[in-house]
Amino acid sequence: MPILVMKFGGTSVADLDRIRNAAEKVRAEVERGYDVIVIVSAMSGKTNELVGWVNETSPMFDAREYDAVVSSGENITAGLMSLTLQEMDVPARSWQGWQVPLLTTSAHSAARIESIPRHNIDQKFGEGMKVAVVAGFQGLSPEGRITTLGRGGSDTTAVAFAAAFDAERCDIYTDVNGVYTTDPRITSKARKLDRIAFEEMLELASLGAKVLQTRSVELAMRYKVRLRVLSSFEESTPNSGTLVCDEEEIMESKVVSGVAYSREEAKITLVSVEDRPGIAAAIFGPLADAGVNVDMIVQNISEKDYDDHPEAVTDMTFSCPNDQVARAEKAILDAKAADQIGFSELVVDTDVCKISVVGIGMRSHAGVAARMFAALKAENINIKVISTSEIKISVLIDRKYMELAVQALHDAFELETNS
Amino acid sequence: MPILVMKFGGTSVADLDRIRNAAEKVRAEVERGYDVIVIVSAMSGKTNELVGWVNETSPMFDAREYDAVVSSGENITAGLMSLTLQEMDVPARSWQGWQVPLLTTSAHSAARIESIPRHNIDQKFGEGMKVAVVAGFQGLSPEGRITTLGRGGSDTTAVAFAAAFDAERCDIYTDVNGVYTTDPRITSKARKLDRIAFEEMLELASLGAKVLQTRSVELAMRYKVRLRVLSSFEESTPNSGTLVCDEEEIMESKVVSGVAYSREEAKITLVSVEDRPGIAAAIFGPLADAGVNVDMIVQNISEKDYDDHPEAVTDMTFSCPNDQVARAEKAILDAKAADQIGFSELVVDTDVCKISVVGIGMRSHAGVAARMFAALKAENINIKVISTSEIKISVLIDRKYMELAVQALHDAFELETNS
Repeated sequence: MPILVMKFGGTSVADLDRIRNAAEKVRAEVERGYDVIVIVSAMSGKTNELVGWVNETSPMFDAREYDAVVSSGENITAGLMSLTLQEMDVPARSWQGWQVPLLTTSAHSAARIESIPRHNIDQKFGEGMKVAVVAGFQGLSPEGRITTLGRGGSDTTAVAFAAAFDAERCDIYTDVNGVYTTDPRITSKARKLDRIAFEEMLELASLGAKVLQTRSVELAMRYKVRLRVLSSFEESTPNSGTLVCDEEEIMESKVVSGVAYSREEAKITLVSVEDRPGIAAAIFGPLADAGVNVDMIVQNISEKDYDDHPEAVTDMTFSCPNDQVARAEKAILDAKAADQIGFSELVVDTDVCKISVVGIGMRSHAGVAARMFAALKAENINIKVISTSEIKISVLIDRKYMELAVQALHDAFELETNS
Repeated sequence: MPILVMKFGGTSVADLDRIRNAAEKVRAEVERGYDVIVIVSAMSGKTNELVGWVNETSPMFDAREYDAVVSSGENITAGLMSLTLQEMDVPARSWQGWQVPLLTTSAHSAARIESIPRHNIDQKFGEGMKVAVVAGFQGLSPEGRITTLGRGGSDTTAVAFAAAFDAERCDIYTDVNGVYTTDPRITSKARKLDRIAFEEMLELASLGAKVLQTRSVELAMRYKVRLRVLSSFEESTPNSGTLVCDEEEIMESKVVSGVAYSREEAKITLVSVEDRPGIAAAIFGPLADAGVNVDMIVQNISEKDYDDHPEAVTDMTFSCPNDQVARAEKAILDAKAADQIGFSELVVDTDVCKISVVGIGMRSHAGVAARMFAALKAENINIKVISTSEIKISVLIDRKYMELAVQALHDAFELETNS
């Protein structure tokens, strides 16, 4: 029998009615001829309740106990889903992480999956079980204790099962019906993509499109697991949702697949930094130590390179999430006070946002950046920082132009049409 | 190190404050020099919530899935209790049933404990762990699935651990501060017993005193585990609560230790039953099949024994819980319709209650029954059925006299005084 992995997130199993709705989708796939592995999250809200109790009990908690407590939510859903399927005459049983076993490292609360031996589940499929309902997000450490994979680890569990069981596909059921060219709340022209390449999905995920966890997409890309994102709350057909797949599976590909944005960004510039070897490390080391997620980094050429300037100085600009600005400033001023770095001025701009266009087609098409910049210029939007990767161009602009910029770029790259 | 087992029921761990309160009691015992095994129930209400979900999902549920779901509540408490102890600098860790492992039969939802290998927990005690917090009420089947011991199985878990680890004592923390001579709500003269024999506790438990589960007392008696019942909500001293122990540990013993009652009883009489071999089986077989818990059974002598009566007939009376009367009547009438039994009349009395006096001292003292009947007669209370065991005398009387009878018997056997 071909194997299908289906994953249902917290909102998809939030109560008994929704569990029944999800089970109907599982039954439909069994009737299509699949042996199914279902990965379930905790009923929405449950994990937060458990985490709240742990934090209240012990602010500096023992992560092993945290994992033992927090993993309970998924166990409950797995049992209830299995019972629901049995009520529909679908032979099903639940599996907790240690029963599979899903073997992980000992890094409690952030464990990595080591392996998933197929034997136990394969044996039950052989005995007539049609659905294995697996509690997501959890595993077993070499010491025999329960581990969790970190928040959102259920997506990763699903992809890992799909890889281990050579599944035909891994369907991620969630509360949106696919991946869009951009946020439909910003432009009604946003269009659902039928397919998107792993690399594009990765860029979109890291840019804040919350459909899939970055880690699960990375894992899917590595093991070439075909991922499908679709809604629990709509009728599913074999073509529902968006398929995240290898780019070879994508026949026609536009230059740009989507426009992403990140609203709460900040831009920090160190003016007239002394330009010497090691200066970047001297700046970004303390920022990393302070837990600042530095995103874009731009260093202009040094003045000595083009002028007869007596001192070798340059301007260094970086961006980070807005709520980390205070920490970033402190780390930089401390480093200056300790004479680790020198600069003349610290300029902070907390009113910026980031707009990105993403597409694997960029690799083979020139002029994408020029087209992007022209579209922004046509709206009189000033670009403050530019950063590019092989399949992405990101810019920082004033936050007030965010929606306008997304709409202009969506139009400029003709994303509302499929051809 | 001597080992102590401490068990906390649902109301004793109902929220984080109560878990902290319970943990304080555990710490006090560690400071007294014990290695402690703590058995925890689910936070009160949690198990009912889980059972409710299972029943709503699947009325004829797969008991294996029921167990997987319902055992989650204890796992949560075990982790939270362990974290709370760690916050108090007490080295503790949580253990789920499968981690110990507590090995059981495969009778899901009503599994029996087979064995508790000591190795894993002993090893951790050897490494400096002072408290093993074990999720009660659950175990592992030979098939590697989670079992539960049935409702209230946490008491049984505690006694089984005390037996397996040769514990000095098994302390059952609950919401009452011990075992009383009778229900203090019925007479303010009720007195807490310092000690009570296993056999007496068994009779009281089966008579509806809800302090301890019958099954856990049986297990304690078999393995001579000294059980102490005490309150989570009072300061504990080494002499708190009531010690349930072997009668050899009880120095002075009254003839009667306590007066128990059961309010909702019914009395059913089959008049003029044909008296032939096998008639009892023909009556009580169908009742057992119908799930009726028959308690007292009284058969009067047959009329042919004392009279020249042409037919051999007798009257057969039994008692059962009031809410099982309809089922009992149906079973009997069905058996009559099928010609399995014959009788002239079925008399049902649903307005009775059962009063019992219990005491190991009865074995060596004559006249206890006479004293009981005299006390009831003095209050003009008519006795409808009498049944006796070696250490117990039970009577059925009209329900309206229940409180009066308890008070009269408590006085008659001078239970308010200790000597």
